[in-house]
Amino acid sequence: MFALEEKIIFKNKKIDILTMGELLVDMISADYGDNFESSTYNRYFGGSPSNIAINTKRLGINSLVASCVGNDGQGKFLINSLKEVGIDTRYVDIINNSTSMVLVTKSKASPIPIFYRDADYHLSYNEGLNSVLKNCKIMHFSCWPISKQPSRSTIERAIEQARNNGALVCFDPNYHPMLWGKNEDGIEYVKSIIGKVDIIKPSEDDAERIFGVDSNENQIKKFLDFGAKLVIMTLGVEGAIVSNGVETIVMETLATEVVDTTGAGDAFWSGFYAAIVKGYTLKEALKLGFAVSAYKLKYTGAVVKLPTLEEIKKLYNL
Amino acid sequence: MFALEEKIIFKNKKIDILTMGELLVDMISADYGDNFESSTYNRYFGGSPSNIAINTKRLGINSLVASCVGNDGQGKFLINSLKEVGIDTRYVDIINNSTSMVLVTKSKASPIPIFYRDADYHLSYNEGLNSVLKNCKIMHFSCWPISKQPSRSTIERAIEQARNNGALVCFDPNYHPMLWGKNEDGIEYVKSIIGKVDIIKPSEDDAERIFGVDSNENQIKKFLDFGAKLVIMTLGVEGAIVSNGVETIVMETLATEVVDTTGAGDAFWSGFYAAIVKGYTLKEALKLGFAVSAYKLKYTGAVVKLPTLEEIKKLYNL
Repeated sequence: MFALEEKIIFKNKKIDILTMGELLVDMISADYGDNFESSTYNRYFGGSPSNIAINTKRLGINSLVASCVGNDGQGKFLINSLKEVGIDTRYVDIINNSTSMVLVTKSKASPIPIFYRDADYHLSYNEGLNSVLKNCKIMHFSCWPISKQPSRSTIERAIEQARNNGALVCFDPNYHPMLWGKNEDGIEYVKSIIGKVDIIKPSEDDAERIFGVDSNENQIKKFLDFGAKLVIMTLGVEGAIVSNGVETIVMETLATEVVDTTGAGDAFWSGFYAAIVKGYTLKEALKLGFAVSAYKLKYTGAVVKLPTLEEIKKLYNL
Repeated sequence: MFALEEKIIFKNKKIDILTMGELLVDMISADYGDNFESSTYNRYFGGSPSNIAINTKRLGINSLVASCVGNDGQGKFLINSLKEVGIDTRYVDIINNSTSMVLVTKSKASPIPIFYRDADYHLSYNEGLNSVLKNCKIMHFSCWPISKQPSRSTIERAIEQARNNGALVCFDPNYHPMLWGKNEDGIEYVKSIIGKVDIIKPSEDDAERIFGVDSNENQIKKFLDFGAKLVIMTLGVEGAIVSNGVETIVMETLATEVVDTTGAGDAFWSGFYAAIVKGYTLKEALKLGFAVSAYKLKYTGAVVKLPTLEEIKKLYNL
């Protein structure tokens, strides 16, 4: 059980966190408009697990990302972005498929995506990845790699290997029906994964997509019933509800100024991960997650130039 | 046989030309650079058969396009672009796949593409299409729809229906290995199609990709040996060599000012088609093809605001 006032004790491993999943280009319209009226698009580094890898590296822990890009100019751009913050990119496969991309409308509410997926879901299991999984404290993955084969099998093997080696397994259930094939029940598959992970961080929208409309308390109970050990349900400006099945706490955000919400969830994960690795208790780590998220919200873009966790801690008087 | 000094006699059909194949977004980098260094991209209407449909409509003949886009903002943009020139868009299927897109580097030499294909190759054969094929003078297709299923089967049936109803069948062998699946021999398939068409217009590059390096004369002979009835081999600034197997002529371009070569080949096809429909001899139509191409070359973009064929004829003293 994950007692909220306690620290997570990790084995002595070389790698703090391995994030697995999408590394892709976000192509965002220059103008607002829900119907892609814009004729100009700006390219950004993207993919939630990759954002977390960059954020946690900047916060001061040792991160790696396992993903797959195309042998093309967009793949080079993404790999160079990882290298710029000092991440070892040898676990990013380069294959002869196009680098995945999401075309997105610039939006003040919910941005509308068009998915162009190719290389990202071709992540394969190999000896290098196997060895990283033996040597990492945390393994994090999202819904993207489990939505299609062959990356689904890769994640299934990775979860097993991570668990066998005592790593903490964390899952971002960012379920979107368009990620799955037309004849597949993505929701059933996501439910089948919940019991295999330690920590799950659904947003209200994620919970609603997976379980339908219900009260926050009931949604949390469902994730626990499916076998998650710690549920962090984020509620946007309302903060989060956190439960390990025995203790349940409500936490408030630390956000003061909201300029852009893109990547705020990734920033939360990043602060939380950096803090549990650095030996803070779960409750402290949740607060530091909110602090990093609050910092991110002041700037535009999914990945902003975060200071170290220690500086964030000072800034927010924690 | 297509005698070069003669006209093509068409049956009395309602539709002058049906183009079949890719309707897609060209996302072109704002800056030059072969490695996608640019972080800004501009969206353009694209897809060679679709360009030809717009061009021929503007030149003054009755054109339709059969293609497939996604039920998304990019699909809407493409369909609206066709409607703006007065093309009936009911033969553009709208499906729940993403609208196809090509990301391209702005380039003074050969632009480098990254293909994001989805909706375009899902073109299906249906009763509406069947009826258009019975009622058109010319059916034109490119390598895109024959490179993948199910559109490959759609084109095969369409060729058969067009031939059975006396339509002229024309093929743009714009072969690119990346269009085909990894385990398929696209070149062998393209060769197998050549004998089923009347007119084929390879560029030097197309010929080299299909048959390897050889002299122009040998390349033309190969297309004829594979069963094409009229070969128009375009040589860029050098003009074209045209052969029906008995007569072979060399033609010069009419280009005076070259601002952008994108879509020059489509403009050539368009002028040629408009002219044969309007009753010009093949030789005159080839000249008018070069005139339209020369007009296009003076402006930026794949599709420019062409005047009518008659105005082009006057402009170039033909």
